[in-house]
Amino acid sequence: MPPPPPAWVNALVPSEPRGPDLLAIERAGSGVEVTRLSELLHTRELINKRSRVEAALIKDPTFDKTELLSMGRVEKIQRSLARGKAMKRLQEKEGWDAEEYKIAHQAAGEPTVYDLHDGMFIVTLREQGTPEQHKLFLEPAVNNKIIGCYAQTELGHGSNVRGLETTATWNQADQTFIIHSPVLTASKWWIGSLGRTANHAAVMAQLYIDGKNYGPHPFLVQIRDLKTHEPLENVFVGDIGPKFGFGSMDNGFLLFNQYKIPHVNMLARFNRVDPATGVYKRVGAPSLVYGTMVWVRSNIVLDSGSSLARGVAIAIRYCAIRRQFQDRDAEAAGATGETPVLNYKMVQVRLLPLLAATYALHFTGRGMMEMYEANQERMKKEDIGDRETVKKIRGAAPEDLNPGAEQLADLHATSCGLKALGSTIAVEGLEMCRRACGGHGYSSYSGIGTWYADYLPTATWEGDNYMLTQQVARYLLKSARAVLAGNAPKNETTTTLQFYLSRKDTGAAFDVLNNDADIVAAYGWRTAYLTFEALRLRDKDHQSWNSLLVHFWRLSTAQSQFLVVRNFYDAVVANPARVAGAVGDVTGEVLRDLFRLYALQTMEQHAADFFTSGAVTTNQISLARTKGISNLLDRVRPHAVSLVDAWNFSDFFLNSSLGRSDGKVYEDMFAKASSNPVNNLTFDPYVDSPVLVKRVAGKL
Amino acid sequence: MPPPPPAWVNALVPSEPRGPDLLAIERAGSGVEVTRLSELLHTRELINKRSRVEAALIKDPTFDKTELLSMGRVEKIQRSLARGKAMKRLQEKEGWDAEEYKIAHQAAGEPTVYDLHDGMFIVTLREQGTPEQHKLFLEPAVNNKIIGCYAQTELGHGSNVRGLETTATWNQADQTFIIHSPVLTASKWWIGSLGRTANHAAVMAQLYIDGKNYGPHPFLVQIRDLKTHEPLENVFVGDIGPKFGFGSMDNGFLLFNQYKIPHVNMLARFNRVDPATGVYKRVGAPSLVYGTMVWVRSNIVLDSGSSLARGVAIAIRYCAIRRQFQDRDAEAAGATGETPVLNYKMVQVRLLPLLAATYALHFTGRGMMEMYEANQERMKKEDIGDRETVKKIRGAAPEDLNPGAEQLADLHATSCGLKALGSTIAVEGLEMCRRACGGHGYSSYSGIGTWYADYLPTATWEGDNYMLTQQVARYLLKSARAVLAGNAPKNETTTTLQFYLSRKDTGAAFDVLNNDADIVAAYGWRTAYLTFEALRLRDKDHQSWNSLLVHFWRLSTAQSQFLVVRNFYDAVVANPARVAGAVGDVTGEVLRDLFRLYALQTMEQHAADFFTSGAVTTNQISLARTKGISNLLDRVRPHAVSLVDAWNFSDFFLNSSLGRSDGKVYEDMFAKASSNPVNNLTFDPYVDSPVLVKRVAGKL
Repeated sequence: MPPPPPAWVNALVPSEPRGPDLLAIERAGSGVEVTRLSELLHTRELINKRSRVEAALIKDPTFDKTELLSMGRVEKIQRSLARGKAMKRLQEKEGWDAEEYKIAHQAAGEPTVYDLHDGMFIVTLREQGTPEQHKLFLEPAVNNKIIGCYAQTELGHGSNVRGLETTATWNQADQTFIIHSPVLTASKWWIGSLGRTANHAAVMAQLYIDGKNYGPHPFLVQIRDLKTHEPLENVFVGDIGPKFGFGSMDNGFLLFNQYKIPHVNMLARFNRVDPATGVYKRVGAPSLVYGTMVWVRSNIVLDSGSSLARGVAIAIRYCAIRRQFQDRDAEAAGATGETPVLNYKMVQVRLLPLLAATYALHFTGRGMMEMYEANQERMKKEDIGDRETVKKIRGAAPEDLNPGAEQLADLHATSCGLKALGSTIAVEGLEMCRRACGGHGYSSYSGIGTWYADYLPTATWEGDNYMLTQQVARYLLKSARAVLAGNAPKNETTTTLQFYLSRKDTGAAFDVLNNDADIVAAYGWRTAYLTFEALRLRDKDHQSWNSLLVHFWRLSTAQSQFLVVRNFYDAVVANPARVAGAVGDVTGEVLRDLFRLYALQTMEQHAADFFTSGAVTTNQISLARTKGISNLLDRVRPHAVSLVDAWNFSDFFLNSSLGRSDGKVYEDMFAKASSNPVNNLTFDPYVDSPVLVKRVAGKL
Repeated sequence: MPPPPPAWVNALVPSEPRGPDLLAIERAGSGVEVTRLSELLHTRELINKRSRVEAALIKDPTFDKTELLSMGRVEKIQRSLARGKAMKRLQEKEGWDAEEYKIAHQAAGEPTVYDLHDGMFIVTLREQGTPEQHKLFLEPAVNNKIIGCYAQTELGHGSNVRGLETTATWNQADQTFIIHSPVLTASKWWIGSLGRTANHAAVMAQLYIDGKNYGPHPFLVQIRDLKTHEPLENVFVGDIGPKFGFGSMDNGFLLFNQYKIPHVNMLARFNRVDPATGVYKRVGAPSLVYGTMVWVRSNIVLDSGSSLARGVAIAIRYCAIRRQFQDRDAEAAGATGETPVLNYKMVQVRLLPLLAATYALHFTGRGMMEMYEANQERMKKEDIGDRETVKKIRGAAPEDLNPGAEQLADLHATSCGLKALGSTIAVEGLEMCRRACGGHGYSSYSGIGTWYADYLPTATWEGDNYMLTQQVARYLLKSARAVLAGNAPKNETTTTLQFYLSRKDTGAAFDVLNNDADIVAAYGWRTAYLTFEALRLRDKDHQSWNSLLVHFWRLSTAQSQFLVVRNFYDAVVANPARVAGAVGDVTGEVLRDLFRLYALQTMEQHAADFFTSGAVTTNQISLARTKGISNLLDRVRPHAVSLVDAWNFSDFFLNSSLGRSDGKVYEDMFAKASSNPVNNLTFDPYVDSPVLVKRVAGKL
């Protein structure tokens, strides 16, 4: 530890007015009922679980976060292993259920090296293994006797699973599979928990029998010795090196050289090779796989709200404390003292719509989860489940079969678009928050930068945000064709398209400045307009798919914005009495202002589409700018701190000097800075001297 | 070092088609004359200097970049000191001039701990010191006998210099100044080279004489012992801790407790305190200070082009090599093999306009530098120089005095707006490039993320990008008032405003799809429209300055986009014969396509302003989208790799596996990954075991 500050330094305090007083004034000035709003967002039960779990973590110095920020990867990855072990021990000691264990991970702030073992590896064994394989592999995995990972992505292939180059060749002679990496680009890559931790891997490889390729299948492969933890022969495995974030994760690479595994190691719940004959057969089909992807993406949408809220909470609290310059008019009027930057319109227009977006995304994610769960129930009852089987029986794509499956197709497209939009908003919003904190936003003690760096891959994984938009466009084109042909199923998408068709000649004239339902309708109108535009370009003008990708991306964004606005409307506007019952009248009104702010600001940013489609006039947009949004910023401003308080992040969770709930920004920055490990070093700065460091505090 | 790969791994090669072949095809398919274009951008002389300097760096293992990526801050800062010393020794050995020393820093890739000593400290002593002080302080500083920094920003105050809290109180009794930090927020903060390196600081402090505040002045203060390098008594100094980037710089904090310095340590070229009487007097005024800021910001504009180009070069080369999926139509037509992602329109529309932006910003920066230099010459001749003196003599702001000073006011506003726009484009563009590289963009070996993190502060320093836009708006409002009053000086801004006024009733009707000059005019028209809008809101509707900040920001952005488009037009369109003479006909035509692509794409993204002002119709924008831009992407695509080659970045400079000029992407990723230091560790992954690491390669 560096030498502690002398007494005269410890006696110093920040100049007035001070953070704690400023935040107290903010909180006193808002009528928002923070506790009730918090419970609306999270439920009381979850809030209690969080505090219990975090209390347990805080007691253990292994979970200290400050030191992590200065560490290199070699230190960090060891700390990650230590934290992972400590967390598993705590789980046992505290008797955490799966949700509590997940909460602990979120609170701890950085991944641990076991994350992919706990998640993907165990899920894969459970879902794709036979009962025999469960006994052999799943049980020891659950008990952490074998530690695994899920090895799909390769150096040369990411999203396109069909392009994988690792092979698994059936060898009838000794009834084994030979796992092999024929080229360098076949190396598994990015595989979490593989680099240093796993001793087993679920490997996706192209199955070959008698020279015929049966496509990618999962194989369980032991890669390291269970005692020495050294790689086995003909396995080359390691960590892929430093990344923009995720320094605590040992993402790994993996190559095989004609590596034999027994027959039982092909995960065989759905497909197997008869060991006696080498005949490949399909014995089932992944049920509800479609559904699993929807579930994963819906979770990303839900998380995008809270992920962004983390940055917004930090930025809004700090901007309520940070004071800089005076307003030009105030200065001219002879006022003294500086203005909290949150009073500047240029700061408000960046942060308050993002604050609104956190709520919009949260309610959208929750709306999707509810639809998804209701639909899963329905499909189970209707015994749809198995897509492939249904296809065989009825000779049709599942979405053509019955309301549940149709609905799933809609949900699938919805989840793709919303995943892309939600994570894009969160990624870009986090950086906006960081920058709104001025120079100190660049310090790691802001808590935003490291979180941004760790969140960033969300824009790429579970479907690259740009790639995914094609799914949405394809679905909308298909729906539009069905609407024109008169054989469309009835759902939200087709209803919106039909409404547009019925009215496009008479025009829309939505009163977006005075009517919330009209705002939603204007978003639907714009999507419908862009959909039929795209349809014309594709079906009439026969433009190539590639040439339309930009249009599709714009279309998907429009559709997803429509869904966010509609979900937000449903949650906070459609039923004011229900909202008032939950959080009171004042808070209900503030939530409605947030809805309007989010919807009008997004409309203003995409004004061209709204004009061109005839959803609104240029005059309405001008008014939305000069009156609507500006007025809403004034209305939301007094509640900004309370609205981020309602997210209920603990200081341990946020890990931010700037975003401290008590406002002690400068004291905390200073304490962390002065004890940072670089201050252990005493340099020899003279160029002629070969010595770099004269002294290391506490060491010499 | 981790154990080397076995022979079977070394024998592996990437699957076909391979990077080197793909890049060769790209290069062969373009008629762009890369060498001539390179010389147009940089001059042959600079290109030669760069290769000489880089060759010297590459020979010295101190400048190896790969290891840096995995280091924590304690290691990194020591390496930074080592690199700094090595670079100063190399400078002497190789006889580098100032430009070559700067090139070496750029090529080395990360700052060294001497950067603020070499820059700000020495410049401050030179510009603000008297001849006596030059002898006392500047000479030893230039010889690295004293190492300094420039300590202005404080924990509680960034941009607002008037708000600084550190005090320097004149003590007549012993003719000293007492430097003091009365509050914690007075702590100097973010000061580069201060944390561990400097033994002196140029401290900006509020000068007090007999209880009267004379505002911030510069004082030279010794802070560490010249032998032990320990902080002196009543000085508390250290490193401010980890940051989002800039890990190699010891940004520092600094507090004083009633710390005495002699009279001679107040830098006294412009202001001094009479030691005998304690009377404060102004003995001169910072000449051309206005000009220095213009110069610094013009450099940022120029650098924003090459800073972005670094990311664009990496992304375009890698996207020409990376292949993923097939085009949907190709797949339907039964084609096999995957498509290079650069062929996808969704990738092109993200990368090719950024490629165009690199050229646009480069020519804009160069245009500004030329205007600035011409004007400095002119002002020197006209003996304007000293703003304060002029003000006294003529009782007017300098911009009202004569053409040179008027021009400087225009340049000042221009430089503010363009600094904000250029660095914003570069910051956002770099992240766009990183994401266009897919998953591998997240690896540090992409070379984009670390560069992005280091470049990021450019959006905040030398004027926060949002704050600066007020300067532009203020200048435009003033110009518009002068135009309306009929007493405007004649310059580009007033001409544009006047043209708009003369034509706004008859309308514009610019043919932006077929006439390049009309594109420029449409941008000017939009700025003029927004300026008079702002003027109406401010002067007629009397809206508060604060309520107009968002409008001002939009206005400044519009004005700066106009200037970029106009500068790019001047450089590559206005005189085709000159361009053809420099780079040949084919390349000249490609540069004109880049101009159109940049201008139309930017127009499309800000379509609403262009409609509303009447500069273009909605139909023109639709055509720009469906025909114009799409067609330009097709035209530029074949030249993409050559156009980034022309930036002439060496592989040492780029430090990117993905952006290697030879296309050996996967070999390089793999070699770096397998030798990364995390692979030295053998874990003990079993939860029950208290051991974390069983073995460290080469150590046990």
